[in-house]
Amino acid sequence: MARRNRAAVRPRLTGRGVRLGRLASVRDARGRLIVAEAGAPLPFIPRRCFFVMDVPGKRVRGKHAQKKHEKFLVCLRGRVTVMVDDGRRRQEFLLKNPARGLHVPPMVWAEQYDFSPDAILAVFASARYDPRDYILTYDEFVRRVRRSKR
Amino acid sequence: MARRNRAAVRPRLTGRGVRLGRLASVRDARGRLIVAEAGAPLPFIPRRCFFVMDVPGKRVRGKHAQKKHEKFLVCLRGRVTVMVDDGRRRQEFLLKNPARGLHVPPMVWAEQYDFSPDAILAVFASARYDPRDYILTYDEFVRRVRRSKR
Repeated sequence: MARRNRAAVRPRLTGRGVRLGRLASVRDARGRLIVAEAGAPLPFIPRRCFFVMDVPGKRVRGKHAQKKHEKFLVCLRGRVTVMVDDGRRRQEFLLKNPARGLHVPPMVWAEQYDFSPDAILAVFASARYDPRDYILTYDEFVRRVRRSKR
Repeated sequence: MARRNRAAVRPRLTGRGVRLGRLASVRDARGRLIVAEAGAPLPFIPRRCFFVMDVPGKRVRGKHAQKKHEKFLVCLRGRVTVMVDDGRRRQEFLLKNPARGLHVPPMVWAEQYDFSPDAILAVFASARYDPRDYILTYDEFVRRVRRSKR
């Protein structure tokens, strides 16, 4: 657990620009405010935002890559592990601090698992839902990565 | 409590377009997904999103109107009461269902209170933070509303 936590703070970044971004966090007597703005830390204007919650601990979500669209993931409560894979390298990030988000660029396979029972994962996406942008099998993803490398 | 709940489901809408919007909600064996897209239910492209949490029960947040920018509020967990005031009428909404959000257009005074201890309030805003857009006192807000009515 401690090892995972360190990995989330100082990650080895994967090849295709996966990176952790810091969200502004303000605590005062009125509570806590966490801010995500287009520009920083979101490297895009979000056209879609969704929230994942009530995920049974053994379930895996995500399991896709996107061709052109990108995402930014923030765990608002609880914790979740995010696995990212650029077709060559694979890395896990433990998200458990709402002031830290993970940018997942296009053509990166991502999966989310080990949701704590109270976890709420916020996902900002650079485009509205478009099924044509999704790559839903890992084999197809790897084929596309290899093709783009030629 | 029951009365408040009914009010949140079938509100008397205030004069300046405050309204409840429905977020897509999908439940399956992998958990629950709540979706907010630009277009529907967000009547704008969000340039900023912030999350309010850990608010002591007696604290009031918000307490401002915006001149041009608009907001959409979703209570992801727990519950919070949102008061909106268009300078003529005042109305309370109890937000406690993440599939229901409240659109607060420009020139509507809003306050949030009675946060439950577990509450997480997501706020989508139509613009990045700009202090010039904020009206921070109710007197000034009412003066501006009256001036615009002439």
